[in-house]
Amino acid sequence: MPLTFQQVILKLQEFWTDKGAVLWQPYYTQVGAGTMNPATFLRVLGPEPWNVAYVEPSVRPDDGRYGENPNRFQLHYQFQVILKPDPGNPQEIYLDSLKAIGIDPREHDIRFVEDNWEQPAISAWGLGWEVWLDGQEITQFTYFQQVGGVTLDPVAVELTYGLERILIGLHNVKTAWDLPWNDTVTYGDVRRAEEFEHSKYYFEVADVRRMREVFERFEQEAENSLAQGLVLPAHDYVLKCSHIFNTLDARGAIGVTERQAFFRRMREMARRVAETYLEQRKQLEYPLLKETSDLSRQTSAKAPVQAPGLVPETSSAQPFLLEIGTEELPAGDLDDALAQLRERVPSYLKELSLEHGPVRIEGTPRRLAVMIEALSPRQPDREDLVKGPPADRAFDKEGKPMPAALGFAKKNGVEPSALQVREEGGGRYVFAVVSQKGRPSPEVLAGVLPDWVAGIKFEKSMKWNESGVSFSRPIRWLVALLGEQVIPFEYAGVAAGSVTRGLRPYDSPEIKVPSAGRYAEVIREAGIILDGEERKASILEQIGQAAALVGGEAVIDEALLGEVTNLVEMPTAVMGEFNREFLSLPKDVLISVMKKHQRYFPVRKDGRLLPHFIAIRNGDDLHVDVVREGNEHVLGARFADANFFVREDVKQPLEAYRPKLSTLIFQTKLGSMLDKSERMSKLVNELIPMLGLGQDEAIFARRAAQLAKADLATQMVTEMTSLQGIIGREYALRSGEQKDVAEAIGEQYQPVPKSRPGLALALADRIDSLAGLFAAGLAPTGAKDPFGLRRAAIGVVQPLIEHGISFNVREAVKKAAALQPIEVKDAVQDQILEFVAGRLAVVLKDAGYRYDVVEAVLAAQADDPARAAVAVKQLQAWVERPDWSTILPGFARCVRITRDQKQKFAVDEKAFVEKEEKALFKALEKAEKTERLAGSVDDFLTVFTPMIPSVNVFFDKVLVMAEDQVVRENRLGLLQRIAALSSGAADLSKLEGF
Amino acid sequence: MPLTFQQVILKLQEFWTDKGAVLWQPYYTQVGAGTMNPATFLRVLGPEPWNVAYVEPSVRPDDGRYGENPNRFQLHYQFQVILKPDPGNPQEIYLDSLKAIGIDPREHDIRFVEDNWEQPAISAWGLGWEVWLDGQEITQFTYFQQVGGVTLDPVAVELTYGLERILIGLHNVKTAWDLPWNDTVTYGDVRRAEEFEHSKYYFEVADVRRMREVFERFEQEAENSLAQGLVLPAHDYVLKCSHIFNTLDARGAIGVTERQAFFRRMREMARRVAETYLEQRKQLEYPLLKETSDLSRQTSAKAPVQAPGLVPETSSAQPFLLEIGTEELPAGDLDDALAQLRERVPSYLKELSLEHGPVRIEGTPRRLAVMIEALSPRQPDREDLVKGPPADRAFDKEGKPMPAALGFAKKNGVEPSALQVREEGGGRYVFAVVSQKGRPSPEVLAGVLPDWVAGIKFEKSMKWNESGVSFSRPIRWLVALLGEQVIPFEYAGVAAGSVTRGLRPYDSPEIKVPSAGRYAEVIREAGIILDGEERKASILEQIGQAAALVGGEAVIDEALLGEVTNLVEMPTAVMGEFNREFLSLPKDVLISVMKKHQRYFPVRKDGRLLPHFIAIRNGDDLHVDVVREGNEHVLGARFADANFFVREDVKQPLEAYRPKLSTLIFQTKLGSMLDKSERMSKLVNELIPMLGLGQDEAIFARRAAQLAKADLATQMVTEMTSLQGIIGREYALRSGEQKDVAEAIGEQYQPVPKSRPGLALALADRIDSLAGLFAAGLAPTGAKDPFGLRRAAIGVVQPLIEHGISFNVREAVKKAAALQPIEVKDAVQDQILEFVAGRLAVVLKDAGYRYDVVEAVLAAQADDPARAAVAVKQLQAWVERPDWSTILPGFARCVRITRDQKQKFAVDEKAFVEKEEKALFKALEKAEKTERLAGSVDDFLTVFTPMIPSVNVFFDKVLVMAEDQVVRENRLGLLQRIAALSSGAADLSKLEGF
Repeated sequence: MPLTFQQVILKLQEFWTDKGAVLWQPYYTQVGAGTMNPATFLRVLGPEPWNVAYVEPSVRPDDGRYGENPNRFQLHYQFQVILKPDPGNPQEIYLDSLKAIGIDPREHDIRFVEDNWEQPAISAWGLGWEVWLDGQEITQFTYFQQVGGVTLDPVAVELTYGLERILIGLHNVKTAWDLPWNDTVTYGDVRRAEEFEHSKYYFEVADVRRMREVFERFEQEAENSLAQGLVLPAHDYVLKCSHIFNTLDARGAIGVTERQAFFRRMREMARRVAETYLEQRKQLEYPLLKETSDLSRQTSAKAPVQAPGLVPETSSAQPFLLEIGTEELPAGDLDDALAQLRERVPSYLKELSLEHGPVRIEGTPRRLAVMIEALSPRQPDREDLVKGPPADRAFDKEGKPMPAALGFAKKNGVEPSALQVREEGGGRYVFAVVSQKGRPSPEVLAGVLPDWVAGIKFEKSMKWNESGVSFSRPIRWLVALLGEQVIPFEYAGVAAGSVTRGLRPYDSPEIKVPSAGRYAEVIREAGIILDGEERKASILEQIGQAAALVGGEAVIDEALLGEVTNLVEMPTAVMGEFNREFLSLPKDVLISVMKKHQRYFPVRKDGRLLPHFIAIRNGDDLHVDVVREGNEHVLGARFADANFFVREDVKQPLEAYRPKLSTLIFQTKLGSMLDKSERMSKLVNELIPMLGLGQDEAIFARRAAQLAKADLATQMVTEMTSLQGIIGREYALRSGEQKDVAEAIGEQYQPVPKSRPGLALALADRIDSLAGLFAAGLAPTGAKDPFGLRRAAIGVVQPLIEHGISFNVREAVKKAAALQPIEVKDAVQDQILEFVAGRLAVVLKDAGYRYDVVEAVLAAQADDPARAAVAVKQLQAWVERPDWSTILPGFARCVRITRDQKQKFAVDEKAFVEKEEKALFKALEKAEKTERLAGSVDDFLTVFTPMIPSVNVFFDKVLVMAEDQVVRENRLGLLQRIAALSSGAADLSKLEGF
Repeated sequence: MPLTFQQVILKLQEFWTDKGAVLWQPYYTQVGAGTMNPATFLRVLGPEPWNVAYVEPSVRPDDGRYGENPNRFQLHYQFQVILKPDPGNPQEIYLDSLKAIGIDPREHDIRFVEDNWEQPAISAWGLGWEVWLDGQEITQFTYFQQVGGVTLDPVAVELTYGLERILIGLHNVKTAWDLPWNDTVTYGDVRRAEEFEHSKYYFEVADVRRMREVFERFEQEAENSLAQGLVLPAHDYVLKCSHIFNTLDARGAIGVTERQAFFRRMREMARRVAETYLEQRKQLEYPLLKETSDLSRQTSAKAPVQAPGLVPETSSAQPFLLEIGTEELPAGDLDDALAQLRERVPSYLKELSLEHGPVRIEGTPRRLAVMIEALSPRQPDREDLVKGPPADRAFDKEGKPMPAALGFAKKNGVEPSALQVREEGGGRYVFAVVSQKGRPSPEVLAGVLPDWVAGIKFEKSMKWNESGVSFSRPIRWLVALLGEQVIPFEYAGVAAGSVTRGLRPYDSPEIKVPSAGRYAEVIREAGIILDGEERKASILEQIGQAAALVGGEAVIDEALLGEVTNLVEMPTAVMGEFNREFLSLPKDVLISVMKKHQRYFPVRKDGRLLPHFIAIRNGDDLHVDVVREGNEHVLGARFADANFFVREDVKQPLEAYRPKLSTLIFQTKLGSMLDKSERMSKLVNELIPMLGLGQDEAIFARRAAQLAKADLATQMVTEMTSLQGIIGREYALRSGEQKDVAEAIGEQYQPVPKSRPGLALALADRIDSLAGLFAAGLAPTGAKDPFGLRRAAIGVVQPLIEHGISFNVREAVKKAAALQPIEVKDAVQDQILEFVAGRLAVVLKDAGYRYDVVEAVLAAQADDPARAAVAVKQLQAWVERPDWSTILPGFARCVRITRDQKQKFAVDEKAFVEKEEKALFKALEKAEKTERLAGSVDDFLTVFTPMIPSVNVFFDKVLVMAEDQVVRENRLGLLQRIAALSSGAADLSKLEGF
């Protein structure tokens, strides 16, 4: 009989206190997670060791489901553990704790799935994993890097067990309600009524005005407490504010941009709390530094890494192996690391002059392996010519070496008599011929391997122990072998050896690698597929077979396949089923849940989804039924959740949600989402003629604009924001709207809407945001772009380019500006246009155009992205022409001589003196008369090119800067008109070689 | 090594979950006690079984001591257990749990000290004990009777362990800070900074206005939640309100009467929460009724009590014993029970016609013993004459018995022929002579013993199990023996037997009592002193010896001695010491703490306290050093606490606290305590001439009035309200005020102030309260008198009587009324006077005066209590005179004939006709001319008595109601003037016999 709910708590308390953890209690204010408890939030700060374990009933109003969902509640029980510093093997201790409560890794699928944990309200982040038990997230495992804005040193390990989910897995049941709390009552007995009541309170009853008033008062109490240096009272009020915020949020009263403001206020308080605490502890001289717990002792008692000793040489070429053993790497980081190693290892070897056979680099989530065949036993000997001081300062007139020569000789280990004098660059210098004997490979490698490892960089990296080293995830072992010989080095507190580790589900057994050459074999015997492509192929084959069993085919998403390949060392496909009734959910919802949340492959047949999914387990097929059932329960719960929302939502037509947008603040100064929605409607009306929409398209666009944001007020989107638009589209169809209207709603968030009504909607949305938020002083600064305005700007230019619609952004911004509730000054509008132009430049450069070409065009016509894009394309073609070297100089001569003239001169045909200037004027007149498309670079250059001979002759024969003012000014006027041919198309002076 | 803090928690969790309790978690809002957690507050309601155990970090802002006190904190850890229903032996299970954490009752002094638990904020009460470990309260043990205004059925047992104090006792240390939390950190390491910070926040930083605003908003949220039937959200807000109230209180912002208003609001909410919860559970059909836990099974599995079987008779007189074995009785209840048994048992026996030898009734906190010598083996036989139907309905004319006679004969078990006819009250009836054979004593006793036990009544009693029986504390065993013979009966679910139980510290061993006669011997052998007087003598002797050891003498307070005598079965004196520096604390504080809080006897020498105390342990002197040290630590902590307050307080002179009274609300409509204090000053000024104070007295009274309430703002009084006045006096002296001023301040709360400035102060205080609170509509109703106005009224009349100062209460009330911030209407003033008169009547009757005498005087002169008291005394003397029977009728004749006359008639001497009336008029004139003291009954009757002969002759000879109107009215006028002689002294018509 598996443990009861309370037995699990008792066991975990026992397990961790036996390990030396302080037993702590839940916090006395509603918190969303054990992290908020001062026993975590504060104690992880500063240098003092701290190991603690406690239950935290965690309240998240938003997760309330009225007691209807099997595993989602407004309150769930966390078991929280903090290990500071890192004990060196926290994953293994953690897995032992699972065993202590009856979870045998061999009977389940336990996975460490990348999780970049971040809690903006307390300015905290860390890296680690969600730990999955048969597809269910049961623990959050994080190496805290920063908390309260303070960088942690030492790093603290946070384990957050989700007790209900662990119990569900342990008992292999569908829902938490039936779990035994103890021998007499169930989880449902003691908790279910509570869930209903609090859900109802948070979603329907809590008074928004009052909550806001209390928030302000509590914030002020925090402020006053901080002013007195009182950390804990201040922290208490920060937490209270946070809970009120969560309540307001569940009530649907917090708008997208208002959310940022709330977070800023809370973050600021949290930061000050953290800083004040640190200052306090410092003044107390860190009293806990004296104490040591078992867990801390474990670290400090670890044998120090041995300094690399003398390494025996080898006499023949040998295979080489470097294996970097890590805790589970994120899928993307694994790809990055392999790419870097594949690129660099050959050059490293070249730099070291080490001859070698083929290099192979492979990896799994837990190991990066560099395998080199036939590595030379030593570097070749070599001679280097080293340059010394000038000869006249090295030798006196008698040719006797002076101090400069003696010092140089000594430094290079040669006799002064062996110095040579050679000429170089017109001077005479002393040179030494230095012979360097090649060093044995083991010695060379021992010196450079730390740098090889250190050289691997990640988008996000973390620290974990006192070595201060950064990596994607902690490095826990290193294998470095040349033949049978260990290459001794140390990195990140780990000494290289010959012992690797096996599969997680087999308890990561230590495995001796007898020699570099036998590594691949050893790994394969351990059940691990080292080669990523091989793993991918195996997965593809298995899911293909599985899908075929139900007469369907797996939906293969390349990104997902790549990710899953990087999540396992031994892939085993597990096919599960879900309740057919969920098929009535929108397909996007189903797929999104399966792929995004669960990393499952959906199964379809004839274009329709089947009620099946395929998960990839890490491990063999032992107890695969338990794994399958577990995964089925998880997916069932997730679908039940979505079903709950959709069922509630579709009780009303989409249109009915529009008025509710008034409770969603877009931004304090810019009003509610309803206000924004109304502005969008007006703006769409203005954009329709500008985009040249047809009559039907205009009708669709107007209706779509009406409904565009309505889905934000639905529960499904409140829950999964990523479904905004998708749900709007779906609900629009279910509400009987026309298909084109529905599609436009769906397209508004796509980078490039397919339909033109969708385009109108997207532009209105984005330009409204740009106008309003810039005016509200919320333009992006530095790396910060909390409102995604860069994306909005790209979202303006990219679709215009792809649709090829000429469109005056300046005019659109002006119209959007007029609709804002606050003034959008002309200077701000200019700023917006400049910002959009900047994004346009990025888009065009990313498309492969030369930067100078882009600059040249945008300098002339940035306001119309589609036209500018055409011009860039044209100009790029021109600059790539072989005769460009004659075209550009011709035009440049006209421009260069005139560009400093402040005055614009008239041309008087009668004032021409020379025939060459007259001819040029004729050519110009002809060019000017030719009809050209606005902004067209082709047209401009096509009319200009024929003039080049006239231009060249003109400059050869005619002195522009004639002494006679009339003559001179007439000539300048002529050239000014030629230069003006480019206006509105491109400013060629921006081009290279101009 | 004793357990660490966290090990104690783990052990208790293990102990109670092994017993079947649900393991629960602390609540997520600050609560003052685990009782507030819904796992207690709600789950104890209704019929469902519920056994639960959890830690509750309990926050009591008021108890903050900035981390300076060894065992008093704003947060302490409770371990809370609820057992519902009563398992039958909760004390024993509890003691087992102490053993489980290493507390051996043989090595300590564990006591169950009466505690009537009450929590007005949640309308809850229960009876039980504080459990003391070596003088330290470590657990609150309560049988909940009512929660949220709902009477509990079944009753729930609440155990609340105070973990810090348990640890202090376990480790025998002075302060919690040094306790090991686990092997690496101490309690102080993890908690001390927190104590300082929160103390500072609660006492100095929390913003009063904001807290009040938040209270109101949360109250409204509770309201809205209840309106939706949401129990838990509502309860959450009630708790939040409660914490805010506590914060305001710690901040010193809650006045005495405002407190009542807050409690009323919270209680009202709590009551509604409880009722709504009950309703909910009912609708759910009490789902947990299906479940049974081990603890509940224990109860239900108990063997049913055997029905009393046939009882063998005895042939000779035998000693009888009834022992009622209980859980520890409160000291007062033990006295009450013994008094009742001593009074009633002899009459019970008489009623039963059971002959017997001497009856002895003794008891200890755990047993009430009725011991009867030589109880007759059976009742004597007897004959009773039973009256039947009237003879004419019993027999027909032939004398044959009719159905009425036959039925009557049958009913009484006689032959119809044996019926007799006798005369009675003028009628003739049938009688039966019924001989009743005496029943054997065992049978008789078995029938009546339940009633003997049930007949014992207590001021407060409780229920505990399904029997529904009420008693002071649960009855756990019964011994009933006649000789060696068990008298079988059952009461409160317990069957009488022959097994008693021994001393608590010896684990209450079961002891067989071989026969009633050997009971005393058995009990003595068990180490128990059954006789209260003997215990008292033993205690006196021991404390005398102990005090002598340090050359002092014990301070014996009779009430305390009596109480202590009733707290132990085997008294052993333990003398301890305290730090000499605490002797600088006010003596009243020291004594008050020792006597009231700890039940210690102080030790003095030459009128000054010595740094010693004597505690009385229940048990022998094994490990007496541990007990002594434990008690020393407790007292040290208590004195440290007082010292903290006094030290802080005396940094400023008493006068400096006066302005702070503005933050203490007296009553919302009546302003702050400062306002009251100012009114008192003004009123004292008015009272000075009314009380006839001398010049110096007036100066003292005015200054004392200024300072009178200042001590309410000191920390010491905030902490121990009972020291109000005492501290004022003490601090006044320390601030250099004159002795008379200090004494007056001290006397203001005494029932009868000794000095006249003290009297002025007390009257001003009490009359101000009466005027204000009556006007605010807060007069006492029914049994409710939340503001102690009855006491205030008694406090007006009693001192006036004792000082013998004539004083017009009406005038004083009028003056006080004029000073109130709200109108005190004339009708309200009348109401107050009537109320005061009512109290005056009670006081006088309690003093032994006849109720009619009191009525008679008060009807004439209630406004001047002292004068009225004198008059009552005089009148009482008159009515006791042998000639009263002539005096009263004489006066009465004059009054009776005139009292219905609505008109008052003038007397015209010339209109008299008869000589008798003329003579009477002369006598009247003489009487009227005699000088009399206002209100004096003596003076009135002394002048009236000589008139009696004239009065009698007058009535004999003269017809008052003459036909001639002039004559008639003149005679009535004469009698009216005689009747008026009594006015202002007494209304004799109220007297019996009038």
